[in-house]
Amino acid sequence: MTHTDIQAVDDANRAFYEALERGDFEELTSLWLAPEDVAYAEDADPDDAEDTSISCVHPGWPVLTGRGEVLRSYALIMANTEYIQFFLTDLHISVVADTALVTCTENILSGGPAPEGGEELGPLVGQRVVATNVFRRTRDGWKLWSHHASPVLAESEDESDLDAEIDRRLDEGPGGGIGGIDGNLGDDGSPA
Amino acid sequence: MTHTDIQAVDDANRAFYEALERGDFEELTSLWLAPEDVAYAEDADPDDAEDTSISCVHPGWPVLTGRGEVLRSYALIMANTEYIQFFLTDLHISVVADTALVTCTENILSGGPAPEGGEELGPLVGQRVVATNVFRRTRDGWKLWSHHASPVLAESEDESDLDAEIDRRLDEGPGGGIGGIDGNLGDDGSPA
Repeated sequence: MTHTDIQAVDDANRAFYEALERGDFEELTSLWLAPEDVAYAEDADPDDAEDTSISCVHPGWPVLTGRGEVLRSYALIMANTEYIQFFLTDLHISVVADTALVTCTENILSGGPAPEGGEELGPLVGQRVVATNVFRRTRDGWKLWSHHASPVLAESEDESDLDAEIDRRLDEGPGGGIGGIDGNLGDDGSPA
Repeated sequence: MTHTDIQAVDDANRAFYEALERGDFEELTSLWLAPEDVAYAEDADPDDAEDTSISCVHPGWPVLTGRGEVLRSYALIMANTEYIQFFLTDLHISVVADTALVTCTENILSGGPAPEGGEELGPLVGQRVVATNVFRRTRDGWKLWSHHASPVLAESEDESDLDAEIDRRLDEGPGGGIGGIDGNLGDDGSPA
């Protein structure tokens, strides 16, 4: 591993999040490992192409496998996201030979389209998510082989949040809205 | 990639979950990548040992990095788990050169110690979790480099669970317990 490797992996990881922020689907597509990337690797057999599938887990989702499923999920997310920004913290990069393992905390600020189709942005939501991203070195730079992101639930806090939400609903009576699992950002802004 | 590779990775992955089921901390320790495993790899520089840290994300937790943090977390989990069983489904294995990427659904049935220190088991809890496990080939077999597990929240279903829980509490009056995010097991047993 060299400083150059670390830098190149860091760049590839940032490019991934920047493509999401810009909603740049074409760029995002080019950052994920494709069968031809693996066939180019010196020690790979072209017959292996089908067994090197990419995989992706969005927070709270089941596993998506293969370029079709993974890229469709991003198209769907982009269509439903008006605004998204990632503040990456706790970045850690390990490299062994041609594989890199990146872990980071994604402090996310996002907003959907305006609820009534108006011109304003939907409500902004803060989320603290942790990610493990696996990259492979290819002729064309480091490409994403796997992305797994999950919510940081901070269990005991969530149970009290849930209790508070239930108390609020009990006070309010039927018909109150429910927030889902978010709002972790800004509790303290730092990793647990 | 050969069938032998796939089989060996599958074995290593099963050994990991079986060690957790048995609460076999020593076996578990031996299954995680150690700095000396990487130094043995033909293309690794021994100076790299510090940069090949293992990482681990338990469902809802932040990232743990390095053998100290990761293994301590398992000691803690084992101490608080009386019974745990993993039913693995949706297993998918990709291998490129000396790295293997495994994704699976962990259908978990677990129980803590009895609440009042009695001899009986605490209540059993079902959970549906998805995992991405990254293995490295070493002289000593395939070793775990990264484990990332996260709850499958199936958002809309969870909201109805919450609604059902609230209805139950309304019926029951104050003082009812709350289950947290679990009970996904058995809804259909297949990925969403």
